[in-house]
Amino acid sequence: MSKKQNTRKPTMKDVATEANVALGTVSKVFNGLPVGDEYKVRVEKAARKLGYQVNEYARGLRASKTYTIALILPNVQHPFYSSMADYCCEILGKQGYRVLLATTTYDPALEQKCVDMVQQNKVDGIIGITYNPDLDISDDIPFVIIDRKFNNKVPCVSCDNFSGGELAAQKLVENGCNNLLFIGESSPVAGEADKRILGFKSYCETNDIKHTEFRLFDNEKNPDKFHDFIDKNSKNGKFAYDGIFCNTDFIARMVMKYLRNNGLSVPEDVQIIGFDGIKNFGFDEYYCSTIRQPLREMAEAAVDILLNKDRASAPALVCLPVTYCYGGTTKK
Amino acid sequence: MSKKQNTRKPTMKDVATEANVALGTVSKVFNGLPVGDEYKVRVEKAARKLGYQVNEYARGLRASKTYTIALILPNVQHPFYSSMADYCCEILGKQGYRVLLATTTYDPALEQKCVDMVQQNKVDGIIGITYNPDLDISDDIPFVIIDRKFNNKVPCVSCDNFSGGELAAQKLVENGCNNLLFIGESSPVAGEADKRILGFKSYCETNDIKHTEFRLFDNEKNPDKFHDFIDKNSKNGKFAYDGIFCNTDFIARMVMKYLRNNGLSVPEDVQIIGFDGIKNFGFDEYYCSTIRQPLREMAEAAVDILLNKDRASAPALVCLPVTYCYGGTTKK
Repeated sequence: MSKKQNTRKPTMKDVATEANVALGTVSKVFNGLPVGDEYKVRVEKAARKLGYQVNEYARGLRASKTYTIALILPNVQHPFYSSMADYCCEILGKQGYRVLLATTTYDPALEQKCVDMVQQNKVDGIIGITYNPDLDISDDIPFVIIDRKFNNKVPCVSCDNFSGGELAAQKLVENGCNNLLFIGESSPVAGEADKRILGFKSYCETNDIKHTEFRLFDNEKNPDKFHDFIDKNSKNGKFAYDGIFCNTDFIARMVMKYLRNNGLSVPEDVQIIGFDGIKNFGFDEYYCSTIRQPLREMAEAAVDILLNKDRASAPALVCLPVTYCYGGTTKK
Repeated sequence: MSKKQNTRKPTMKDVATEANVALGTVSKVFNGLPVGDEYKVRVEKAARKLGYQVNEYARGLRASKTYTIALILPNVQHPFYSSMADYCCEILGKQGYRVLLATTTYDPALEQKCVDMVQQNKVDGIIGITYNPDLDISDDIPFVIIDRKFNNKVPCVSCDNFSGGELAAQKLVENGCNNLLFIGESSPVAGEADKRILGFKSYCETNDIKHTEFRLFDNEKNPDKFHDFIDKNSKNGKFAYDGIFCNTDFIARMVMKYLRNNGLSVPEDVQIIGFDGIKNFGFDEYYCSTIRQPLREMAEAAVDILLNKDRASAPALVCLPVTYCYGGTTKK
């Protein structure tokens, strides 16, 4: 399969001879150290001609740079995480970095193990979505965390969750709703996403809009509490609330299905807005009307902060703007 | 952030002293070379106690083993690829391997670049889904390809696509259909998925079932040809075919939506079966009735073949069994 042009692998010395430069110049080029442009071109041309392959491991040892970024995510099954992985891969790849992917299944011990593992592996940096509040992170390795402010030393990138909550309430009101409901899960770990309800409440209070908050516990495994709540608030085929803001698109879709199965029309009787901006098959249509997180821009921001040499000036929290996207569960 | 227990990092010599064994024994344990169980336990205990971290790069150079597997996929946005990435990560992680993820956006040149890159990086093996028919793969690195038989030297893991096509036809017939239609895209590169239509036709011919084949070209960007076909075969609110097998769940969902928008009832008038077994949000409900690929088992098989030392005995093609899953677009 391999195009074997030579039986003997070319060495750095062969490249130096071919390029007619000193061995040290070749070494500098391969290790990304400053060298005149003309020399750089000659060395790279010679290396290509001879089919010389830099031994990345040896390079890692010498230059203390591995051109590898670790990405630590709960999983890459959920479209939010898989999109984040996809964008990070693309953006880092274009900048010559590889991605080491570790998945943690939300297990705090596994999260710590992943962090330890990638630190041992001498990566140049870590981008992570983690839920372990006691995570032990080495100061030596640049770390950017997504969606949860860990402490002021680790920069966090998220969307503007607070404005997203405000925007959801505003859109429901603009669409004619006047008795709003928030439905969200109770997260055991505080995170940036908690600001969605705060923004929602802030808008309602400022604009004197009637609003109620309902918390799901363990919503995937035991939907009874949620069903009870919906049933208790339904009378003669009417639901007590005409606009619902759900903390995620997944919850929005679950709510929509349950309401429709119970004879309520969405969006005619009840309008629903989710959060995330997730699409069917990852690229097709929105599941519901939604507040879209700018995932590509968040990945770009995380990479920029991570690769920036001036870590001391990194912001503690970067919140990127969200947008409202129509997806059939609101009137417009 | 880091729990700094010592200012000086422990060395292998410290571990040897702590464990009361020779330095060579410590080296053997860290490099995975055979050593008595008792010694192994003592060394590992001492290493843990001292917080000794193996320098993975140095280990990579010494042992010629990096404990890293590269995963090359078109993207991790599409649920088929993201599930594959998720399972590979989990399965390899449990066996002490890291995953280097590279995405190629179906670009043949980028596929070659990714393969070259991971080969330079001295990974222990590659699992790939690639569409470049001229891919240049080194014989030196174990490679397992998913879903496309590259040549007889590179083992391929796929689902049993042929049986899946047969099963789809059989299920449609069992559900009362007697005029079947196949809808699939025309892939520019031959792959295992092409066997779906072959199995479908084989079942129909063997059992004397009327059947037709329709090919989409460029189905996502220009659905006109597909709409024309559906319109031409619809008369007085009836569609000429009562059972459709679609090459993917994505196509099945597109067909279902178009038929429903044109006043046809699915599954009452027309029943539809897709292929893949993809779920909403990656874990919720099937998009449609479907022939499910056993993705976890395929990932396990790929890892098993890849890590098996006896590469000469690796099978050229492993086809894992598919199952029919009801998802609302058939009568049962």
